[in-house]
Amino acid sequence: MTSTADPVEAATQAGDCDIALGEPSLLARVVPAMPRLRWAQSTWAGVEPLLAPTLGRHYVLTTACGVFGGLMSEYVFGYLIAHERRILERFASQRDGRWDTTAPGTLFDKRVGLLGVGSIGAALARTAKHFGMHVSGYTRGSEGCADVDKYFHGRAALRDFARDLDYLVCAMPNTGETRRLVDRALLDALPRHAVLVNPSRGSIVDEAAVVEALRAGRLAAAVLDVFDQEPLPPDHAFWQTPNVVITGHTAALSFPRDITAVFLDNYGRLLRGEPLRCRVDFERGY
Amino acid sequence: MTSTADPVEAATQAGDCDIALGEPSLLARVVPAMPRLRWAQSTWAGVEPLLAPTLGRHYVLTTACGVFGGLMSEYVFGYLIAHERRILERFASQRDGRWDTTAPGTLFDKRVGLLGVGSIGAALARTAKHFGMHVSGYTRGSEGCADVDKYFHGRAALRDFARDLDYLVCAMPNTGETRRLVDRALLDALPRHAVLVNPSRGSIVDEAAVVEALRAGRLAAAVLDVFDQEPLPPDHAFWQTPNVVITGHTAALSFPRDITAVFLDNYGRLLRGEPLRCRVDFERGY
Repeated sequence: MTSTADPVEAATQAGDCDIALGEPSLLARVVPAMPRLRWAQSTWAGVEPLLAPTLGRHYVLTTACGVFGGLMSEYVFGYLIAHERRILERFASQRDGRWDTTAPGTLFDKRVGLLGVGSIGAALARTAKHFGMHVSGYTRGSEGCADVDKYFHGRAALRDFARDLDYLVCAMPNTGETRRLVDRALLDALPRHAVLVNPSRGSIVDEAAVVEALRAGRLAAAVLDVFDQEPLPPDHAFWQTPNVVITGHTAALSFPRDITAVFLDNYGRLLRGEPLRCRVDFERGY
Repeated sequence: MTSTADPVEAATQAGDCDIALGEPSLLARVVPAMPRLRWAQSTWAGVEPLLAPTLGRHYVLTTACGVFGGLMSEYVFGYLIAHERRILERFASQRDGRWDTTAPGTLFDKRVGLLGVGSIGAALARTAKHFGMHVSGYTRGSEGCADVDKYFHGRAALRDFARDLDYLVCAMPNTGETRRLVDRALLDALPRHAVLVNPSRGSIVDEAAVVEALRAGRLAAAVLDVFDQEPLPPDHAFWQTPNVVITGHTAALSFPRDITAVFLDNYGRLLRGEPLRCRVDFERGY
């Protein structure tokens, strides 16, 4: 075992190691110097930095999947309830000394569409059902989640998927296929009262189209955790667009307790010669 | 059937009616003029106005119990998540143009204490378990809810009940026994990082003690929907107390769809000669 704060130095020291645990952006710097690497465990859900074709693929890469479902549920449903109950607006009333009796809405009987139903999407679907919502799922073809009421597959089905949603939630990895999936056409297909929530990857959303839809009143609100450029540049239109909530890439942080559990589980599997969980398909991109 | 906007006029016209459906505050005005009244269905969960000893008790009174659990869950857990994720503070950062990456907390593994485990408390317990929380319940003696991990009974147990809570949530009716249950001693027994949530009845809480605890930093925050006097008077200390959220008695409104279902269910029971659901014990007060 080797420990140093500098990743390049770590790579030099780690040349003989066959197992690595770390953030994808740092792992990407040491992987080329680790010819004996058998397995790398990412501490994040997304592993884009390790997918560059110039990097070696001589090892098994596993993501920290399965640990973010709970955090993502708290994020998404916290902001969905905040929207229904006007938590931000009601607090503004309070600041003005006003007894605000505006009736709140409810999640019950509302419709949420999940763009992607992997481990995070499945956790979101479960919480949505807990609150009595109708759940639609858009996937490549899988239909494995019992909490999804209706599935939609392929871009041709996107308009039907979007047509009657109250909430559109992105729960997809960043791949060529998901890039700009939330574009002007998809936003136009949503009802005007719909809310977009993106806690997954900035690349999924056409940011200019979101700004335009919000300004034109064709989208009620957008809750955005991730962006094309982070930190969001000070002159970005989102800062001045009405009904945007910006949460600074904090939706689901990696807590050591969770990541340790994932690592130990996979380490046990490696020792026993069993297949590792959450293995990345380098070609597919997740 | 009789229909008029004025309750006293309604009472005159309704003298012969044996069934009534309405808000307790209005029913209290017509009940004395309805000697043939067999059954009154309240459209609210609380029925205090009908408990006055001067009013007749010659009829069966049923509350709108069982319909507010979902709404109360959305209210309570919306504000619990808002606290963990700093939704209000993060939005203030955004208003200032700041990319706020402050790490959020999580409900997972946190401890919630329910003052009262009736139909609303049970719904709250179920949502708490969904988010992976530990649930304590304070009741008169009943232990019927499987989602409560640990029960506490009687005032002597209140300090133990409160000792390690992250959240204290009131889910009790207004009776002599619940009056000022949340007093200085109970607030002192809570950890300093605890949050008080009261969506049930203002009388349960000693408001001056809450103000004092918040100002002294012995309580982290209070989310209050109900108050001794409503609307909250403009000169009330809560308006100027830090870390208070005031929600104007909107936690769980009576939606016609829900109340109609309760009324029809009980009406069917009445016709079939079965016991009505959610019958009030006039002596007990709920």
